[in-house]
Parts: sequence; structure tokens; C-alpha cells
Amino acid sequence: MLDPITIRKARREDVADIVGLLADDHLGAGREVVSDPPAAAYFEAFDKIAADPRNLLAVAEDRDGEIVGTLQMTFIPGLSNQGAELALIEAVRVESGLRGQGLGQVMIGWALDEARRRGCRFVELFTHNSRVDAQRFYERLGFEKSHAGMRRNL
Amino acid sequence: MLDPITIRKARREDVADIVGLLADDHLGAGREVVSDPPAAAYFEAFDKIAADPRNLLAVAEDRDGEIVGTLQMTFIPGLSNQGAELALIEAVRVESGLRGQGLGQVMIGWALDEARRRGCRFVELFTHNSRVDAQRFYERLGFEKSHAGMRRNL
Repeated sequence: MLDPITIRKARREDVADIVGLLADDHLGAGREVVSDPPAAAYFEAFDKIAADPRNLLAVAEDRDGEIVGTLQMTFIPGLSNQGAELALIEAVRVESGLRGQGLGQVMIGWALDEARRRGCRFVELFTHNSRVDAQRFYERLGFEKSHAGMRRNL
Repeated sequence: MLDPITIRKARREDVADIVGLLADDHLGAGREVVSDPPAAAYFEAFDKIAADPRNLLAVAEDRDGEIVGTLQMTFIPGLSNQGAELALIEAVRVESGLRGQGLGQVMIGWALDEARRRGCRFVELFTHNSRVDAQRFYERLGFEKSHAGMRRNL
């Protein structure tokens, strides 16, 4: 049973906890750098997100004020689909000890509500091919694997 | 052999041509409304894109000034990957009579340069599962089908 959870916009003092969640993951472990304090690049990225009305970084906080989840949303205007706005959900992470207890569902439900509130007509997300459990999770929440998600390094 | 092409930021007077390109497509045909002038929703979406420094709608213009291609880019800040910025490419269309002649490659090359110029470290895009030719095209340009692209209507 999941304790009461608050989902809210991330603050600058949450950056270390968010980086910890990003790193605590089979893909993230190899690409994040965890230090105290976090590297300046993380704060620079946070400041860019916080300054942009079309980006929203959120955290899930448990009853003790501990950060136990995070996700980011980007609200993208576009001409396609008769000018429909799209919400992209990225960097979804749940603390490893809390997985499988419904926190992810609460977080995605919150994100869908936020997308609706902003008038978006679609939500899209990428999940790495290796995240088979995540893909099943999103399918249960009404997402379809309708697209290939393609990526290229620069 | 491809005639000289200019790729540039879209202007409001290009909206009708862009909508025409979006509709001239096996998926777009069922979801766009082509009218003269285009529906107000398309102009409203254009204005939102034009007002946002993190979104870029581009067109490809042939030597006669005709619009023969379009794509949109969104430059997304994020904490993941040590604060790496991501460029999302969307709504890529090439005029049907010009497909297979290299215009798409010129357009994507332009988009990759633009993403590099802005300091992005990754480029991502969704292609519908049914666009098998497009997936091969992007693979030739260095993209990998590393992710599932999941979508949900609201």
C-alpha cells in the first residue's frame, strides 16, 4: 500500500536527489555522475528547465518529504493533427525500493492530468528497448507502441 | 539530381503549404483539414511555435521559391546524461513528387547541424511503425531504433 505522495514542481534543492534517481537505474548508472554537490552541468540544466514555461520537471515526495520519484514534461506546439499540442514525458524514475507499488501509476496519472489541463491532445514518450517492464506498464495505462523511437548521438 | 534547395525558418505565409505537405501522406490524409485559407487552429499553432525560442519550424524551398519540404525541431533541456540537451525532430515531410531524390537527407543534415550549433548531444524522433521506409532512411543517417515510441490520446 502506497503512503500519501505529493507530486510537485522540482526546486533547485531537489537536484541532488533527482540525479540520484537518474543514476539508480541500469541505463543511468553508466551515464550519470553522482557527487556532492552535483556537477554544475546538472544545475545549469535545471535552470534552463525552470526558466522555460514549456518544460516542467516534477518530483514525487513521500510523507517524510523524501524525493522518491521524478519525471519531466515538455509541452510542444505543432501544426500536425490540426494544430494539436503534444506533451512529451521523459526521464521517469521511481526509487528502486518502491517499484511495483503504484507510485509510477500515480506519477503518470498526474502527468496526464497536467497535459489535459494545458490542452494537449496527445502524450508521447520514449522507452528504451531494454525496458520491457516499463513498456508493459505504459500499455496498461493506455499507451500504444505505435512508433519506433529513433536516436542519434551528435 | 536535386536542384538547389534552401532550408529556412518558416514564415506565417508558409502555413498553407506546410499543411498541404502534412496532409499529403498516408497518415496525415485522415487527420489534417486542407482549406483555403487554412483553419485558424493551424495559424494559432504556428504563432506558438514562432514565439518559442526552443521550437523551430523549417521549410525547404526549391529554386522557384516553392515549399517542397518541412520539419519541426524542439530543443529540450534535461538533467539526464549529465545535463545534456536533446533535439527532437518532428513532422518531417517531403513533397510526394520529390521523394527518393535526396531532399530528406539534405533536410535532416540541416537539422543535425542546427542541433549541433545549439549544443545538443542527442537527436531523437518518432516514426510511425508503418513508416518502414522512413525507418531505413533514418538508420542510413545514423539513427538507431533504440527505443519504443509510445503514444496515448487524451
